[in-house]
Amino acid sequence: MERESQLPLRNKVEAVTLPALSCVALCGGTHGNELSGIYLVQETLKNKRKGEAMEAVTVVTVISNPRAVQQRVRYTETDLNRCFTYAMLSAPVSERTPYEIIRSQELNSLLGPKGSGQAVDLICDLHNTTANMGLCLITYADSDWICLHICKHLQREMATIPVRYIHYDIPLSEAFSLESVGKHGFAMEIGPQPHGVIRSNIFTAMQEAVHLMLDWVRLFNSGTQFDEGSVDVYTMVKNIDYPRDPYTHNITAAVHPELQDRDFCLLYPGDPIFLSFSGEILRYKGKEPLYPFFINECAYYEKGVALLLARKSKVKIPAIQCSRA
Amino acid sequence: MERESQLPLRNKVEAVTLPALSCVALCGGTHGNELSGIYLVQETLKNKRKGEAMEAVTVVTVISNPRAVQQRVRYTETDLNRCFTYAMLSAPVSERTPYEIIRSQELNSLLGPKGSGQAVDLICDLHNTTANMGLCLITYADSDWICLHICKHLQREMATIPVRYIHYDIPLSEAFSLESVGKHGFAMEIGPQPHGVIRSNIFTAMQEAVHLMLDWVRLFNSGTQFDEGSVDVYTMVKNIDYPRDPYTHNITAAVHPELQDRDFCLLYPGDPIFLSFSGEILRYKGKEPLYPFFINECAYYEKGVALLLARKSKVKIPAIQCSRA
Repeated sequence: MERESQLPLRNKVEAVTLPALSCVALCGGTHGNELSGIYLVQETLKNKRKGEAMEAVTVVTVISNPRAVQQRVRYTETDLNRCFTYAMLSAPVSERTPYEIIRSQELNSLLGPKGSGQAVDLICDLHNTTANMGLCLITYADSDWICLHICKHLQREMATIPVRYIHYDIPLSEAFSLESVGKHGFAMEIGPQPHGVIRSNIFTAMQEAVHLMLDWVRLFNSGTQFDEGSVDVYTMVKNIDYPRDPYTHNITAAVHPELQDRDFCLLYPGDPIFLSFSGEILRYKGKEPLYPFFINECAYYEKGVALLLARKSKVKIPAIQCSRA
Repeated sequence: MERESQLPLRNKVEAVTLPALSCVALCGGTHGNELSGIYLVQETLKNKRKGEAMEAVTVVTVISNPRAVQQRVRYTETDLNRCFTYAMLSAPVSERTPYEIIRSQELNSLLGPKGSGQAVDLICDLHNTTANMGLCLITYADSDWICLHICKHLQREMATIPVRYIHYDIPLSEAFSLESVGKHGFAMEIGPQPHGVIRSNIFTAMQEAVHLMLDWVRLFNSGTQFDEGSVDVYTMVKNIDYPRDPYTHNITAAVHPELQDRDFCLLYPGDPIFLSFSGEILRYKGKEPLYPFFINECAYYEKGVALLLARKSKVKIPAIQCSRA
């Protein structure tokens, strides 16, 4: 049409090209009492299709901490998901080395080595939380276009559960969790679910998210271009511990009912955060409104964390396309 | 007034008289990862009033399983709350006897002996469940007027949470849990709360219920007559296990989303109870509609119990009064 041809030509957006994701690791049981990922990995193993050799992507399934899974505990000697720093992955092993450190080095051999060209292309490590966080992808990067595009895909496609992107601003050498071993990687965290319990709705959401992620990877590998856009990223700023007795170190308050289950609802200075066992309200003393998450997560009592706080920013992501397509 | 005097005289109901409840034991931490009772007992200890010697009732506070509390686990070697049968309480002790059996015998010395005149008058053992059960008093008797009147009192006074009475029809000799050591006793079970987590609303409800129970005991001891009435009693009939793989014994399904959190909602033959990990619906095959409870309780996976089923009946309770008033 004449009028249109008179308009200035729009530059076609140049897509960033990235290598194919030939190998994806799907890991469950990094914490042995977070059941959704364990049963999902077992179920995926059962259903591995015969035609898999023809697939555009190889999916490796891993039960990360089989001893902890067997005992239905988070870990047996030390938290496996704090063992993937460069220092711990290269620590010498003796008879007294905790099982989980040995296991982290095994997993690094299997899926890494971390930071190398031999590492798997993408690690998806499946987790549950007692916090009301919906589905979160947790990463060490706010500029990993693969992870951000997968997040956008899940946000668009998942109807039953909110999907968010969390960023821990930690260099790769210090990055302590399993997903840091892959070329790309994220923890997929879903809650609320008590540890040691499986809730059908949470299992189904995780199953759907994993299917959607693998669909996305297949589309990407087959040459589909994904449009530019933006994703809200929650970058972790700090954490807050429970009030504790200075002598016994026992907690003296619970998360305030007005904060409990309100993950990702902006917390303002002066808002209640704890209600002490004797009935006293304790308030947020920070100067900046921030987004709370991992509110009252079971496993973080021992780590001295009642909740984490994040700043939200909108990250622009470029159009991407597989370089070999 | 003349008209009134012409009405036939109503027989004043004769109250059943029962001995005073001089000593009440408040126990927490029978399971070391059920946190409400642990913090409530610790808080009660802190606040023991100076004028207590003047009180109409002595309250003994007990942390039942201190080792498990320390480790934040249900138990260390065997479930303490299955160790109070006559057989286990009189079992010989050797170096290889599990800690919890030794501890049950200590608690029997402290609060019992079970079945004897020296036992404490009332044991209230504080528990949490991951099931959506509200507040339940769990007992071995459907004709313990003390427990039933306390239940009625809580049902009348507690605004925020439903209160129900559960009856396990087991003779005293076989009764396996701590409350069976007292002359009267019940487990006070509150949920939903993940094990290893404390939720403020659940803590507050338990605190209120304990205060109301002690208020009732004081009124009873001071001679107040409590009117006759009735209480709905849920008597345990049977339990249902998760579907399991015959070889690995791993569960192959989760509680169906339509049953999850519907404790005490009548389950009819044909209703869905499980959704398998591959998407198949499994239905209730019983012939009689029954009331499910302890649906998807974390600690019962290892016991082979996905839910319990109860029959409901209305139990008439007489007016009661303290015999020494």
